[in-house]
Amino acid sequence: MSVLKYIGRRNPAVEKTLSRLLPRGMEPRVLARASRHLLEAGGKRLRPCLTLACCEVVGGRAEGALETAAAFELLHTFSLIHDDIMDHADLRRGVKTVHRLWGEPMAILAGDALFAKVFEALSLNVSRVGLESGRAAKLFWIVSRASFELSRGQALDMLFSKRLGLREEEYVEMVALKTGALMQASASAGALLGGGTPSQVERLGEYGKNLGIAFQIQDDILGLVGEKGELGKPVGSDLLEGKRTLVVSLALQILRGEEKKKLLGVLGNPAASREEVEEVVSLLRERGVLERTRERALKFSGRARKLLRGFRESEALSFLEELTEFVIERRV
Amino acid sequence: MSVLKYIGRRNPAVEKTLSRLLPRGMEPRVLARASRHLLEAGGKRLRPCLTLACCEVVGGRAEGALETAAAFELLHTFSLIHDDIMDHADLRRGVKTVHRLWGEPMAILAGDALFAKVFEALSLNVSRVGLESGRAAKLFWIVSRASFELSRGQALDMLFSKRLGLREEEYVEMVALKTGALMQASASAGALLGGGTPSQVERLGEYGKNLGIAFQIQDDILGLVGEKGELGKPVGSDLLEGKRTLVVSLALQILRGEEKKKLLGVLGNPAASREEVEEVVSLLRERGVLERTRERALKFSGRARKLLRGFRESEALSFLEELTEFVIERRV
Repeated sequence: MSVLKYIGRRNPAVEKTLSRLLPRGMEPRVLARASRHLLEAGGKRLRPCLTLACCEVVGGRAEGALETAAAFELLHTFSLIHDDIMDHADLRRGVKTVHRLWGEPMAILAGDALFAKVFEALSLNVSRVGLESGRAAKLFWIVSRASFELSRGQALDMLFSKRLGLREEEYVEMVALKTGALMQASASAGALLGGGTPSQVERLGEYGKNLGIAFQIQDDILGLVGEKGELGKPVGSDLLEGKRTLVVSLALQILRGEEKKKLLGVLGNPAASREEVEEVVSLLRERGVLERTRERALKFSGRARKLLRGFRESEALSFLEELTEFVIERRV
Repeated sequence: MSVLKYIGRRNPAVEKTLSRLLPRGMEPRVLARASRHLLEAGGKRLRPCLTLACCEVVGGRAEGALETAAAFELLHTFSLIHDDIMDHADLRRGVKTVHRLWGEPMAILAGDALFAKVFEALSLNVSRVGLESGRAAKLFWIVSRASFELSRGQALDMLFSKRLGLREEEYVEMVALKTGALMQASASAGALLGGGTPSQVERLGEYGKNLGIAFQIQDDILGLVGEKGELGKPVGSDLLEGKRTLVVSLALQILRGEEKKKLLGVLGNPAASREEVEEVVSLLRERGVLERTRERALKFSGRARKLLRGFRESEALSFLEELTEFVIERRV
């Protein structure tokens, strides 16, 4: 069973839950529209499916984790809206960003409103399934912790983009917070709701974290070599914004002399031309930087895969297994 | 027993809990500093004390609601940080606002980080006291709901400031969300943790909401006639920003001809002079606008007071009673 098939089968229930949490009629309407904008623009709903699959893989029913699954999409979307403001991004998922359409104040609020809904969703889930008190507190702890880590990761990202060099460990620390923490929480919350043992919850969380790191490394690569139409944002924008991705970190170690100069000429330089960017991307390919970056993605994806050993075979397990390949093979 | 005495006695434990939730050593340091900045700049800790007193008034021990009490100060501070960005405010509690010191991106993140900590605090509270599952879900529901209402209220505030007239009911709706919802939640969460019955939780919530509305009306008055040093922000700044306060709403009904023109000359006009602002404030006083506004504050404070009937006499009850006067008598 393929990753997209599992997602396709689970998504209708996730979408329905999202709509119930964020009804169109919400007042004021502008806040409702701004909050729903990116959610409606697409997205693979990877995090909700991660929650549902981890719930199933420990023996639970996916249905019992629906609101929590949806909560992770809300949390993810909230962070995208705020990140886009901070990065002055114009496009996301192929549409204009929230702050470009409604201005920064409304975009800040739209994010805050989604963030609030995250915890409302959890409490609805807890009430509906009558989750035992200890597990309920743990669930809220997992999600609030991840939200906090998300802010820490984004703060590190901002700090790092002011420095030239970035050690690989620093990069990993940053993306473990920025992307890993949310996937870790999505996975462990699912396991928790499915009735998993503490060690299963922990193990699936570690799986999610490694998956997230691999996912982010692939994202960095796609930001350079992806297709604009598919990616939903301009190719090379990470370079022009001066983001310290793993590609950049490795490139600064590998490139020398003139070649390094060319990289530095476009890094954090929004005025760099399309041709200059393309020249740098070719360089990164020729000097093996992209290959080395890809090896790192493979490493984390492999770790994630190993953490799945010992779980009983099921469709949910196949999904989680294939997901470790999907995140590093995807083109969008 | 006076309001300030109750606050003074409860505050050390609240401060300690806040410090435990936001340790100085948090990394990255800049995020820690930006998150703690406004918390350390002062504030009366009114919301935490509201939680603790409502916990006591239904027969609970204040100690059992400490993390939740602190959570409301975090939630309040988060909303101040984000509101200040949206309002382009320079000063708050007598110090520079977070975005003025660290820039907007870090201020957005500092707010988000505090917001995340709110729910971490609740989950710590739930675990520590072993709160029963139904009550735990209700607690999270109360707080997430209030957070969502907060965003709705702020969005209404933004929308209203683009319109000239504002009916009194619209104003009340807006501040019931913007200020009422948080005090409502602070009170009802306290009652919930103290073991209150559903009707006590509801009733104390209504008390908090009315108290919050009265508080906000007084805030609007102080924004015009308060002392700069005490208030921590420039007098008349609400007028210059074009905020639709109750004072403005009533003034637009009461003033006529030249006098109305003078009001419109400063409303939403950051270039208006100090003298022009003072002239308008004198007008508002002479034409009874401030008096009428004060009557409205009294009305809501009176409603809050009535909702306290039937609770057993205690120091906590005296605090809650006196608080209804305090919020409309205060100078800061």
